[in-house]
Amino acid sequence: MIIDCHGHYTTTPPGVGAWRDAQKAAVAQDPSFIGEKGGFGVSDDEIRESITGNQLRLQQERGTDLTIFSPRASWMGHHIGNEHTSRFWTENQNDLIRRVCDLFPENFVPVAQLPQSPGVDPAKSVPEIVRTVEEMGFIGINLNPDPSGGHWNGSRLSAREFYPIYEKMCEYDIPAMIHVSAACNHNFDTTGSHYLGADTTGFQQLMMSDVFKDFPSLKIIIPHGGGAVPYHWGRFRGMALDQGFELEERVLNNIFFDTCVYHQKGIDLLLDVIPTKNILFASEMIGAVRGIDPQTGHYFDDTKRYIDATTKIDAAAKQAIFEGNIRRVFSRLTV
Amino acid sequence: MIIDCHGHYTTTPPGVGAWRDAQKAAVAQDPSFIGEKGGFGVSDDEIRESITGNQLRLQQERGTDLTIFSPRASWMGHHIGNEHTSRFWTENQNDLIRRVCDLFPENFVPVAQLPQSPGVDPAKSVPEIVRTVEEMGFIGINLNPDPSGGHWNGSRLSAREFYPIYEKMCEYDIPAMIHVSAACNHNFDTTGSHYLGADTTGFQQLMMSDVFKDFPSLKIIIPHGGGAVPYHWGRFRGMALDQGFELEERVLNNIFFDTCVYHQKGIDLLLDVIPTKNILFASEMIGAVRGIDPQTGHYFDDTKRYIDATTKIDAAAKQAIFEGNIRRVFSRLTV
Repeated sequence: MIIDCHGHYTTTPPGVGAWRDAQKAAVAQDPSFIGEKGGFGVSDDEIRESITGNQLRLQQERGTDLTIFSPRASWMGHHIGNEHTSRFWTENQNDLIRRVCDLFPENFVPVAQLPQSPGVDPAKSVPEIVRTVEEMGFIGINLNPDPSGGHWNGSRLSAREFYPIYEKMCEYDIPAMIHVSAACNHNFDTTGSHYLGADTTGFQQLMMSDVFKDFPSLKIIIPHGGGAVPYHWGRFRGMALDQGFELEERVLNNIFFDTCVYHQKGIDLLLDVIPTKNILFASEMIGAVRGIDPQTGHYFDDTKRYIDATTKIDAAAKQAIFEGNIRRVFSRLTV
Repeated sequence: MIIDCHGHYTTTPPGVGAWRDAQKAAVAQDPSFIGEKGGFGVSDDEIRESITGNQLRLQQERGTDLTIFSPRASWMGHHIGNEHTSRFWTENQNDLIRRVCDLFPENFVPVAQLPQSPGVDPAKSVPEIVRTVEEMGFIGINLNPDPSGGHWNGSRLSAREFYPIYEKMCEYDIPAMIHVSAACNHNFDTTGSHYLGADTTGFQQLMMSDVFKDFPSLKIIIPHGGGAVPYHWGRFRGMALDQGFELEERVLNNIFFDTCVYHQKGIDLLLDVIPTKNILFASEMIGAVRGIDPQTGHYFDDTKRYIDATTKIDAAAKQAIFEGNIRRVFSRLTV
């Protein structure tokens, strides 16, 4: 079985965007607007249609079986409005993901967005973890290291205020993917410098901390091939040694990198530098890059092809990346 | 000849830090403090001593001939104080670099720090470009894409306010290295996530802009191997095509990557992905990573070894990276 651990629902029916636009308009009018959860008013048929022609079609075309699926990352928009804005939006988005997984139980398994909000205690996201995991069968979460959307004015991931989330993750044995949302800071480009910079920043915040000493079983996924980290593995190893610790020992029991790297040579580097046990197959498909590479004739984000083609690792290692490692990290996955 | 295009004066005599500490204390006391330029009060013997046992020794040990040398990047500290703080500090730092180059004319050539300051028009840095290039023989500049020190609250590099700098660069035919200083935002680690994130951010700001259409002869160096860019070259190519342009055509006449990547596999990727003509030898030595890699027995930042050892390019390409490309980009280099 081939499992893609990084899929976002980017092709939602129009009712989703309409609900969000109305919410944004209300909170723009009145920053203390609370509103209510309501619902997206989207039918099962609309959901089926949005999936069948997109994610499901690409799964079949590319020969992957299952996608670990969460709300569209760039739409999480934790910086928008207030904590109620984020909470109602998040609950609806997670409900929608559950419906997709109910409609296509053999193809999708759910991962939750959290109702983070700038300046709001991360512990307030714990009830949504409880709800989605205990009541709704979710198998992981996405954790935003910068809910401000590129202003980076909150706490590091090593701050004690994140510990209630880490405690709950360990209790449930679920991983978190460190993933920002859209940049509202005009210096950053969302799916480029912002995502990749946040991957590198999240990694370093954890690497420089005692988080994995305090939570030895914590599992963290750094997406987009780890941002800049594997390419600069020597730099990070050297910085660690300058600080008196070994990078591998500090992070490799807890941190995993996905394979969302969109060219053969980048994938080859990832597989060559990072131990196989720390790599999880992913494509982020219908995501940051949607076109076909004229040099190969294939979609940039068809990452399975790069792994199939690489000579850096053997068939058993490839199978571990496609399935075994993912089942180990997402231990609640039972499909 | 082997030329290292990314060296910072990190081993300055104690008088330099003392001058800066006094200036910082004064401006902390009174944010509108102006002060005066004064001087570091450092003797030629002190400068000689600080260089001979450090940069010069390593040049000789590693077999490099010449270092393109600028003030310590992490000390630029553009976010500290006000525009006068930055101006006097910068002028003194550039004067000091000139003295190093006068004392060791066969080993060092000067590149300038700019007196940038958050919220201050970048055009105010033009007089220091004129002074250092016309009067002092400098051959390039370092341009900080985020003088706030990690708050990223200024303009993108594509903003019109940077155009007076680009005009002067084209007039003098000098390149700029895009290089941030120390992070004063606690989310970032200066020589890791901050430097690498800024490299990627600066690259994307330029890639998404008309800067190279408006300044066809502009030369920009992205240090630290280009941050995350070469590792994610497929992602950036794909994002460009999604936007209707070709990445190579947009940037490869104007952007150059240095070789400050501290392991063999990272260097191999850089040389394999980026055309040789766009790569410049550099080590950033006595910089971010100062130790020896226990896996190789050599300094992490002894990047010449990785290039000597690689099989990705031939001897002629290596020589272009070591010297020819650098002379082309730094056209005012005459040593």
